[in-house]
Amino acid sequence: MEYYDTDSVRLSDDENSVIIIDQTLLPNRTKLLYLSSAEEIFEAISSLRVRGAPAIGICAGYAMYVISRRISSSDTEEFLDKLSQVGEYFSSARPTAVNLSAAIGRCLSAAREHKNGSAAEIREILKQTALNIHLEDIHMCLKISEYGLTLVKDGDGILTHCNAGPLATSRYGTGLGTIFLGSERGLKFRVYADETRPLLQGARLTAYELDKAGIDVTLICDNMASFVMNEGLIQAVFTGCDRVAANGDTANKIGTSGAAILAKHYGIPFYVFCPSTTIDLSCRSGKDIPIEFRDGSEIRTMFFSSPSAPEVKCLNPAFDVTDHSLITAIVTENGICLPPFEKSLRGSLKK
Amino acid sequence: MEYYDTDSVRLSDDENSVIIIDQTLLPNRTKLLYLSSAEEIFEAISSLRVRGAPAIGICAGYAMYVISRRISSSDTEEFLDKLSQVGEYFSSARPTAVNLSAAIGRCLSAAREHKNGSAAEIREILKQTALNIHLEDIHMCLKISEYGLTLVKDGDGILTHCNAGPLATSRYGTGLGTIFLGSERGLKFRVYADETRPLLQGARLTAYELDKAGIDVTLICDNMASFVMNEGLIQAVFTGCDRVAANGDTANKIGTSGAAILAKHYGIPFYVFCPSTTIDLSCRSGKDIPIEFRDGSEIRTMFFSSPSAPEVKCLNPAFDVTDHSLITAIVTENGICLPPFEKSLRGSLKK
Repeated sequence: MEYYDTDSVRLSDDENSVIIIDQTLLPNRTKLLYLSSAEEIFEAISSLRVRGAPAIGICAGYAMYVISRRISSSDTEEFLDKLSQVGEYFSSARPTAVNLSAAIGRCLSAAREHKNGSAAEIREILKQTALNIHLEDIHMCLKISEYGLTLVKDGDGILTHCNAGPLATSRYGTGLGTIFLGSERGLKFRVYADETRPLLQGARLTAYELDKAGIDVTLICDNMASFVMNEGLIQAVFTGCDRVAANGDTANKIGTSGAAILAKHYGIPFYVFCPSTTIDLSCRSGKDIPIEFRDGSEIRTMFFSSPSAPEVKCLNPAFDVTDHSLITAIVTENGICLPPFEKSLRGSLKK
Repeated sequence: MEYYDTDSVRLSDDENSVIIIDQTLLPNRTKLLYLSSAEEIFEAISSLRVRGAPAIGICAGYAMYVISRRISSSDTEEFLDKLSQVGEYFSSARPTAVNLSAAIGRCLSAAREHKNGSAAEIREILKQTALNIHLEDIHMCLKISEYGLTLVKDGDGILTHCNAGPLATSRYGTGLGTIFLGSERGLKFRVYADETRPLLQGARLTAYELDKAGIDVTLICDNMASFVMNEGLIQAVFTGCDRVAANGDTANKIGTSGAAILAKHYGIPFYVFCPSTTIDLSCRSGKDIPIEFRDGSEIRTMFFSSPSAPEVKCLNPAFDVTDHSLITAIVTENGICLPPFEKSLRGSLKK
């Protein structure tokens, strides 16, 4: 398999390390980490140096192979036991991350299916399994992106929320995959990236990824989405998602529902991109999807003094205009003006 | 006139200084500044230590009086000339701030009307004019707030955007006046304050003012407004505004139009509070109102490492659910699912 620079997780040429981009340092510093020991891998996953559910799964696959090469036992049963312990250890790095335990489980199952083989043979199986997890993710993202390209056209303005790009997946991403693939094929999109408070994944990761790939991206604050839509700059909204209920209700990063309501108001299509594994038919509607509440310190404190790269283009309108059709009443010291405002505002000035 | 602690601008007891709260240090430090020289006053206005159009006007009124006491000339004409120079100097501190030049113009007109009087008499006129500007603002805010109280009821949840409270005006504020006045009368509102990126006036000023007054306030990121509305926590949206066109289109801090669209979607009333001087009939619609674009560094760089006081309550949902009725299509590697999703999602999993 050929690796691209944009692959956020990959196997080193000497196969002794998993290479990741340290996402906690982005966008101000692009540092590759060569993770060789089980402890280094555990720390990278638990500290979110590698993040994004598919990316974590890919990392775990390669990690199982890399560590299997450090298990010196030639007794197959002992080798498999030690491998299981490593898998448990990795799984505990982020206990709620489904892709992490799924990838580790898949590696261990593949290994156990070959328990009659040698340790060397099992290592080869682990390598192939890890490569398959990575390849399948690339193919899944590619397919999603191909479908996405049928929904937009050259020159379209696309609003994004949070980050569902290569850093979070393999090569293309889900929500951003269409943009990357289209760009490879010469299409010119104009992307407006919501910064995505409180943790600023849009500013730190989406704007970084797109800008680095030479794609026209403009960073905006979340509350500027209505402005750019009203200006006619947006032809589609693209997001990834965390879970889809049977009725289509979709859980994603906070703020997604607001972007969807704005899109509907302005008559702009709103598209959700996700692996089919994200569809959870056991949830009948969004009411069945639990919402994680995080600590208020994420809002009270700015963890990132420079949330975006200095070269990222920004649009920063200080004001916007609220259409009169959206206003219930305008209250001045002369009284309460109700629609039709043409009449009531004039009346209020005569008092 | 009796001053309240909450009056963000006032005259010192010895009448040698204008007292302001240095708003650039809020909410982490509450520092009163005693501005005695013309240079100190100019610096405070130009550096936004005092901000909010009405507050700037009140500050300018007191400033003209305070400085008039330092003009030693007993020749009335010379005295008025020097006063005019001071007025021009102050006006240049923020050239586009209408309230600043209006307040200075009013003081100078009042002084010139008494050009046959002594310098001492004119100083007294200036003092009275400054007090009137302050009192009129208090009365204007009070009237707006009284009208506002007819629009909400005890226990209501109110969403606010940006800051239109006492710090920006005199005693009550416009957009927040109803909340402060209602609270004085024993009404219990639950306020949700949008942080208002990029400059975080909601986090730094609104949450601070309300919390300090013992009013139940919860700070949220701008993109969480849809979430709290969907949870039934909001019964009304309150904002101030910068300019109202003849048809009711209203220019206000970026993000206001988005909050209004969300409110309409959820069937929540959206109220605008403003002095009648804000209504500009020369603008037929919002299209005639120019929008200020500011530097991208406000988005790229976080100027405030601690944008809110540590004791401010926050709500921090990490995800939200987008209702299926808002989604145009859900794209997986198996294809494009269109509504009705109940059917298309199941179909996509069978492939």
